[in-house]
Order: sequence, then structure tokens, then C-alpha cells
Amino acid sequence: MRLWFKVNYFGKRRMKIGSVLVTGANRGLGLEFVRQFLALPTPPEHVISACRNPDGAKDLHDLKNKHKNLSIVKVDLNDTEHLEEAVKEVEATLGNSGLNLLINNAGIASRDNLDTITAEEMMRHFRVNTVGPLMVTKVFLPLLRKAAGSGGEGASINQATVCSISSGVGSIGENDSGGAYAYRTSKAGLNMITKNMSIDLKKDGIIVVSIHPGWLKTDMGGPNATMEADVMAKKIIDLMGTFTSDEFTGKLYHFSGRVMQF
Amino acid sequence: MRLWFKVNYFGKRRMKIGSVLVTGANRGLGLEFVRQFLALPTPPEHVISACRNPDGAKDLHDLKNKHKNLSIVKVDLNDTEHLEEAVKEVEATLGNSGLNLLINNAGIASRDNLDTITAEEMMRHFRVNTVGPLMVTKVFLPLLRKAAGSGGEGASINQATVCSISSGVGSIGENDSGGAYAYRTSKAGLNMITKNMSIDLKKDGIIVVSIHPGWLKTDMGGPNATMEADVMAKKIIDLMGTFTSDEFTGKLYHFSGRVMQF
Ligand SMILES: NC(=O)c1ccc[n+]([C@@H]2O[C@H](COP(=O)([O-])OP(=O)(O)OC[C@H]3O[C@@H](n4cnc5c(N)ncnc54)[C@H](OP(=O)(O)O)[C@@H]3O)[C@@H](O)[C@H]2O)c1
Ligand SMILES: NC(=O)c1ccc[n+]([C@@H]2O[C@H](COP(=O)([O-])OP(=O)(O)OC[C@H]3O[C@@H](n4cnc5c(N)ncnc54)[C@H](OP(=O)(O)O)[C@@H]3O)[C@@H](O)[C@H]2O)c1
Repeated sequence: MRLWFKVNYFGKRRMKIGSVLVTGANRGLGLEFVRQFLALPTPPEHVISACRNPDGAKDLHDLKNKHKNLSIVKVDLNDTEHLEEAVKEVEATLGNSGLNLLINNAGIASRDNLDTITAEEMMRHFRVNTVGPLMVTKVFLPLLRKAAGSGGEGASINQATVCSISSGVGSIGENDSGGAYAYRTSKAGLNMITKNMSIDLKKDGIIVVSIHPGWLKTDMGGPNATMEADVMAKKIIDLMGTFTSDEFTGKLYHFSGRVMQF
Repeated sequence: MRLWFKVNYFGKRRMKIGSVLVTGANRGLGLEFVRQFLALPTPPEHVISACRNPDGAKDLHDLKNKHKNLSIVKVDLNDTEHLEEAVKEVEATLGNSGLNLLINNAGIASRDNLDTITAEEMMRHFRVNTVGPLMVTKVFLPLLRKAAGSGGEGASINQATVCSISSGVGSIGENDSGGAYAYRTSKAGLNMITKNMSIDLKKDGIIVVSIHPGWLKTDMGGPNATMEADVMAKKIIDLMGTFTSDEFTGKLYHFSGRVMQF
């Protein structure tokens, strides 16, 4: 009797996963992921919101007062040495269960061009947007493997999935406008991490994907963006529900579901 | 009367470029690039070999004793703040001419896998293999622009070209074996830099490409590699001679000339 078999029923709004962890959950798209998971008809048993400053995460604390299945844990992508502490807390929260879904959502973006880009900006983006998701995924692997159970062909989001929020501008092949060196390069690096882990974790039945969430009205996207973060969080949760076997692993998805070029 | 018009005659062994700068020129593929340029029937007026420790570069000093057109300049990719000093030296060497060809060859590679990879190894590779070539190209842009002259449709290696030695394992799309996180990710980042600069520098008539040099018998490639560095340096110089217009820019080339997926 395998977990995915018991809970593997899909269809929009019918996704049921046991546990999800979202990084950068205190604002923007990350906060909307948390809200939308909590609002599912059958919400996850554990919604774990990770942010680098839990004390200041007012919206998360407000939500926590209403939702017993929400927890808050400290994860700072600039401080990967202390990730083990977060893992211990999450383990305590999950009890005997593994982690079904890890959403690497936290990220930074600055504007630069060939004239203004510096080595330091490149390194800063790479650490947060590329190395951060890699190290976070690494430390949560034991919990993801636990959720994947027997793995293999049953791989699906209801078992174990790593979903990294990348960006369309991280696509090298579809880049036709230049600029934004630090952001583009760090997200291209993230897409390599996704592809690489998808290969290395196939034997464990863990799906690994990158997703482009579109241009969103968040602090990062600004007020002129074309889409609302809550609508997009819902849309991406639906999209993730379609990743029902390992033929979906190792790709960069546009939020529409289109597989983008790397 | 444009420079490219005067010297734009091609064909294997007939390439004529005014000046070339090679990073990591003290050993391996970089040293062979220097040797093969010096051995061309019409060698460049200026072959500039860049390495991080000129004093210890015995092979380069031996070559310099025989070739007046060879100069040695210090370029350390870990120390991009001091690159301006190299530019001044190169300017003095070139006199009134620009730089026709920049080969970003220096690079590092360690073996790692998902278990062993650390944040520090990721950052170390990114600094040398990705940020290094970006910052080197940036500081030499005035000299590349000078060589590109009027630019536009006349773009060719005889005018101004940036050629970054990347790797096939930096192709996200063609990755089917995983592992080597730091090296793969840094080279994927380098390929984004190539694509991005190719777009931003098109108006200047500067061609920017990445090249996969194959598995070479160097310190990096080891003794079991399938090809000799001198043979490959010659082959890549011939390949670069085929980049005769800006339709060749912004791509990752296999040494055979095949355009690889990003
Ligand atoms: N918005 C868009 O148009 C757009 C487009 C394409 C892709 N994306 C991607 O979508 C994701 C979410 O973006 P968003 O629009 O929600 O951005 P946002 O509004 O700027 O929020 C960024 C989130 O990441 C967190 N974060 C930043 N650095 C961190 C670190 N070192 N450690 C831990 N958390 C950190 C922030 O926490 P603090 O509050 O502590 O800073 C915040 O929670 C990002 O990966 C972004 O690249 C966004
Ligand atoms: N060999 C292969 O099979 C293979 C395959 C695919 C791609 N490549 C690429 O081909 C290029 C040349 O490789 P190779 O085989 O000749 O490697 P190699 O024999 O290890 O030589 C590397 C060169 O890069 C220089 N270098 C390393 N770090 C540097 C830094 N921080 N600043 C300045 N120079 C630095 C080294 O200088 P020091 O002597 O001072 O260390 C040396 O000159 C690399 O970009 C590599 O990634 C090689």
C-alpha cells in the first residue's frame, strides 16, 4: 500500500498533498502559495512557511492564528550553514511523514546591464537564486525521499516533488533582449540545478521542475506587472497537480504549461 | 575603408587576425592556443597571453624568446578588481589598434555530486568560470569596440569576437547524466553570459560565442581524455574563422561546428 496510491486523485481543485514547504513565504508569490494551499478543499496536513525573519512575518502569524496546519520556520538562503536547524524543526512538525512538496520560491532580482553589472551583484544573485535552492533541496532530501516511498513510476506531486520558481528570463534559448545579467545568469544556473537533480533523483522517484510564474504584481514585479500573485499561485498549484509521472521531470515550465527552452 | 574589408579573407590556415588575447595561457588548451596562433602562416601581429602568475609561466617565456609578437600579461579571474592594470598594459602593446579576438579560456573543474557539493564549491566555480569571463570581457570592451570599427553586417572574427571556452556539460538541454554541479552550473551561467552579450553587443558588431572543446588531455581532462590539446586548439581556430557574420553570434558550438542546445 503506497501513499501515492491512496491519495493519487487529481483534477483541478482536487489535489491532495500531505505536506508542502514554501521558501520566501512571508510576502509576494510565496505568501500567496501559502494562502492558496490553506484554501484548498482538502488542504495539506502541513503547510510549512519558511522565511528568513519569522518574527517579522506578520501575515504568516495572522494566518497561523486561523490555521492549525500552518507552521513557520526560519530559512535564510544566505546562511545555508544553519539549514540543519530548519530540518530538525520540520521533522518535528511532520512526525512520521515525509515532505511531499518543496517549493523553492525565495529569490532576488536587481536591474543591471553590461555597463553597470559588477562581480559582487553576480555573486549575490548566484548565492540566493542558485546555490540557495540547491542547498535547501539537499538538506530536505531525506524528508523528500521518505515521502517518495517506493518511488519509481509512481512519482507524482503527491509523493515527492521539488518545484523551483525560476523565470522565463532564465531561459538562454528564449533570451532575445539582453540585460539583467545577474538575475538571468542565476536563474539559468537554477535551471541547470533542476535538470541535474531531476536526473540524480529519478531513481528515488522525486520529480524536479522549474516554473516560470509570469510577471507578477509583487515587490519584485512592481505595480505595472500583468498578473496578480494570488491568481498565479492557484494556477501554478493546478499545474503542479499535472506532474503525475517522471516523464514530467527535469523541465522548465511556463505557467501556461508550455515546456520552455533552457 | 574598413579593416574587415582589407583583411577579410578566409579558408583553413588562411585566417589573419591582428590581435588575440587568451586567458589561462600558461598551460593546457590556453597554451596550445598561443602556440597555434604563433604558428599560423600569417600569425597575428599581437598574441597576448594572459595568466595569473606570469613569473612562473616558463613555457610562455620560452616562446616569448622566439616570438617578438608574443606578450605576457597578468590576469587573475579571482581578482577582477585589478583587471584595469592588464587593460593598460594591453593598450600599450596594441598601440593604435583594437583587440580582434578575446578567448576566455581559463577555467576550473572539480568533481562533485549531489552528496558532496557545497555552497563554497558552487561559488568558487561561478566566480572563475562565469563571473571571470564576464568581467574580463567588460574591461576589454573598449578595445574590442575599437577593433570592431564600424561594426554591423561586417562582423567577423577579423573584426571583433569574444570566444568563451565553455563545455558540453554546461548544456542544460543535452545533460543526461547529472553530477558535476559546480562545473555544469558555472558553464551554463557562462552560456547565458555569451547569449546575453551577443544581444547587447550586436549593435557594436562584436560576435560572442561559446565553444565546447571536447575532452582534452590536459591537467583538467586527465590522461584518459580522447583528444590532444594542440590538435583541438588548431581545430577551434579554424572553426572561429568560419564566424564571418553576426548570424553566427550567440550560440554554443560543439568543436565540430554543431550548434548545441543551451
Ligand atoms: N514577480 C515577478 O514578476 C517574477 C517573475 C518571474 C519570476 N519570479 C520569481 O518568483 C519568485 C517570487 O518572487 P516575488 O515576486 O514573490 O518576489 P518578492 O515579492 O521580492 O519576494 C521575495 C521573497 O524572497 C525572499 N528572500 C529574498 N532573499 C532571501 C534570502 N536570502 N533568504 C530567504 N528568503 C529570501 C523574500 O524575503 P524577505 O521579505 O525577507 O526579503 C521574499 O519573501 C522569485 O524566485 C522570483 O525570482 C518573479
Ligand atoms: N580539458 C577538458 O577536457 C575540457 C573539456 C571541456 C571544456 N574545457 C574547458 O577548456 C578550458 C581550458 O581547460 P584546460 O583543459 O586547458 O584546463 P587546465 O589544463 O586545468 O588549465 C586551466 C587554465 O586556467 C587557468 N586558471 C584557472 N583558474 C584561474 C584564475 N582564477 N585566473 C586565471 N587563470 C586561471 C590555469 O592557470 P594556473 O596554471 O594559474 O592554475 C590554467 O592556465 C577551460 O575553460 C575548461 O573548462 C576543458
